[in-house]
Amino acid sequence: LANPASEALQGQLQQSHPAQIAEMLTGLPSEDRQKVVEALPSEAIPSVLAEMQTAVRNSLLANLDVGVLTETVCVLPEPYAAKLLESLPNNVADEIRETLDPKARERIDATLEWPKGTAGRLMHVDAVSVRAHVTIAAAQRYLRFRKTAPHNSDGLMVVDRANRYLGKVTYAALLTNPPEATIESILDPRAVAVQASLSEEETARLFEQRDLFSVAVVNADGALIGRIAVDDVVDVIRRLADQRMLNLSGMTREDDTFGPVLPSARKRAIWLGINLMTAFLASSVIGLFEHTLDKIVALAVLMPIVSSMGGITGSQTLALVIRGLSIGSITSLNARRLARKELAVGGLNGVLWALMVALVTMLWFGDFRLGLIIAAALVLNMTVAALAGWGLPLLLTKLGQDPAIAGSVLLTTVTDVVGFFAFLGLATVVLL
Amino acid sequence: LANPASEALQGQLQQSHPAQIAEMLTGLPSEDRQKVVEALPSEAIPSVLAEMQTAVRNSLLANLDVGVLTETVCVLPEPYAAKLLESLPNNVADEIRETLDPKARERIDATLEWPKGTAGRLMHVDAVSVRAHVTIAAAQRYLRFRKTAPHNSDGLMVVDRANRYLGKVTYAALLTNPPEATIESILDPRAVAVQASLSEEETARLFEQRDLFSVAVVNADGALIGRIAVDDVVDVIRRLADQRMLNLSGMTREDDTFGPVLPSARKRAIWLGINLMTAFLASSVIGLFEHTLDKIVALAVLMPIVSSMGGITGSQTLALVIRGLSIGSITSLNARRLARKELAVGGLNGVLWALMVALVTMLWFGDFRLGLIIAAALVLNMTVAALAGWGLPLLLTKLGQDPAIAGSVLLTTVTDVVGFFAFLGLATVVLL
Repeated sequence: LANPASEALQGQLQQSHPAQIAEMLTGLPSEDRQKVVEALPSEAIPSVLAEMQTAVRNSLLANLDVGVLTETVCVLPEPYAAKLLESLPNNVADEIRETLDPKARERIDATLEWPKGTAGRLMHVDAVSVRAHVTIAAAQRYLRFRKTAPHNSDGLMVVDRANRYLGKVTYAALLTNPPEATIESILDPRAVAVQASLSEEETARLFEQRDLFSVAVVNADGALIGRIAVDDVVDVIRRLADQRMLNLSGMTREDDTFGPVLPSARKRAIWLGINLMTAFLASSVIGLFEHTLDKIVALAVLMPIVSSMGGITGSQTLALVIRGLSIGSITSLNARRLARKELAVGGLNGVLWALMVALVTMLWFGDFRLGLIIAAALVLNMTVAALAGWGLPLLLTKLGQDPAIAGSVLLTTVTDVVGFFAFLGLATVVLL
Repeated sequence: LANPASEALQGQLQQSHPAQIAEMLTGLPSEDRQKVVEALPSEAIPSVLAEMQTAVRNSLLANLDVGVLTETVCVLPEPYAAKLLESLPNNVADEIRETLDPKARERIDATLEWPKGTAGRLMHVDAVSVRAHVTIAAAQRYLRFRKTAPHNSDGLMVVDRANRYLGKVTYAALLTNPPEATIESILDPRAVAVQASLSEEETARLFEQRDLFSVAVVNADGALIGRIAVDDVVDVIRRLADQRMLNLSGMTREDDTFGPVLPSARKRAIWLGINLMTAFLASSVIGLFEHTLDKIVALAVLMPIVSSMGGITGSQTLALVIRGLSIGSITSLNARRLARKELAVGGLNGVLWALMVALVTMLWFGDFRLGLIIAAALVLNMTVAALAGWGLPLLLTKLGQDPAIAGSVLLTTVTDVVGFFAFLGLATVVLL
């Protein structure tokens, strides 16, 4: 970035929304990101950092001075400030925490108190509350006196004398009802509260099912401690969906698409290593039949077809089950029925394609028995694959593991081993 | 569902949120779904239908009478009503359209005018607008006179005399600013409008980037024609993310997880058929080396390792690139840089695992040259795989195809063919 270009850049940056700048930075290599951040007015840095993916933000933090970081922590809403503090080295985070004024520190600590991945970590602690017995006119006067409403809020929380959550009134209700009515009379019936300990996945599901804009967060005693707005939940939904997709290839959302090569290679190496072990396992199954193989080259040629068709069948069921588990449509009540359906689908497709492959094999190698063998192996492998695609994610979920991470590699192992064994084993028995 | 159970069911249904009932129905087989719907009070059916996945809703429509369907169309917000009409047989849809009162028909037609997958199809046509010169007090009086605000709205649209969109004022701003101020003075600066022709994917991205609750929809002349609320956008985000994940296994979101077997089998058969053709292609490459294979069984045993490691490497890059394209972080400007990075990552991992595999091969088969051959084939295949994982989704996007659908099957073909060819070709040259 030369100097005149840099001036043009600065002009452009000033007109851009923080989210656009953050997105642009994501697409740059690490060195250039640094230069763009230096070109930003320092008061703009906090909001740009807030909009960034964690991996990209972390690549920048090392070069920012503590002053800008402290300012960032102060300016950010609590959930972002908490995340930022967590991604800094402990000594820097402690230094920043000490320079914060006690009230700001308290607000951030109220968020950090809850474990990662819970509703407590998503909440803003700036919820405005009123009592149920006051009139709409009084609530309106109070809001005018405050002069601002919390960012992306859609109403006031209603609490009792002990700050226990009673419900919510939307701003729309405050505007469309007679001023002399009480808050109690216009409580929004849809307005549930979530426990701060609820998982972010469950929280997101609630927002989706109920079409919510925002929700109150309460502690175990039912006291109002914060609010979650839908824009943060949208980020959660996007993040969980991305994770699910990338997990299927053994990657995480933390992968910085345009980041440096070495960390990326290291992270992906693990997955390849696991796959290699399972590939060796599959190979050793082939090795058991060296004697058979030695005699009939056709077997070696056709072998990958059996394993590959099983792999596809299994991963189709796997993807459906992972999606169903994540949106909550698969439960212990209907899981067995789904197994029967998937077995039927897998078996049907097994028979269909087995006939097809048997025909091609007979024409290609002129061997009737070979066609029958591969057909039987295909039906068997595709049925087992459907069962594995159904059972593996359920088993992994029961063991507390994320099925999207380990599911596909385990599945391929099953379909390779069963496929090779069925095909070569049948051939050994029938042909030799 | 027996009679006493049915009464218990009815009690439970009456206390459930429509979204919960819809979710419960999704997990039931087709026959039971019908019985539950019959147990619902008929006035509850419309909202339950609105919350459902398209495939599940379509499985129920055939058994509902035209009266209930018409009532459903009338009660639903425009985007849902339009979707419902579209999923009915043409003659039923026409019958319903004719019984609608002209105003309701006009509102639905205003949505149906826009193509599927655009912002116009997501919009509600009930946006409330005010003029810029009026005072806050006047706007408040107008809202009290209206008695209700549109469902899930967060503010009033501001238009000029010709209904051209000027901006938005939030309900929060109406409540926190002095009543004598004008609407113009509190216009929300973040409040952009979207063209009705904008794709739903772009619309969702805008909501995510700008943390919006709602957005105005304008036509080509800039006139206000509707509004989109974030809850509908959340559905879009979820739907597109689901689609992307399921597409990787050749399935669509229209698959009804608990639906009947035959349609499911038919849909998945196509994908298996495509995979079979590519598997035969891969097999025919092995067939080229029959002579070599005949002599060295070890080759047949090790062969799947080369293709499988390439497959994993390629699909890691593929998943990253598909994600990047879908969130817009990969552009023509940085695509080449990403290729260099992915090649480096793939090559690095290739060298690492090639050394490992070479060692195991030498120990297993006691053949030094065989170790070198498989190592060379691995490095080559994993490098090509990274390049293919990068290039295929970009090429498919340029051709107007969805990379998530065709990407993984094309990729596996490349890694199988290159892997078998490199390994067996090298073996033929070196060993024979």
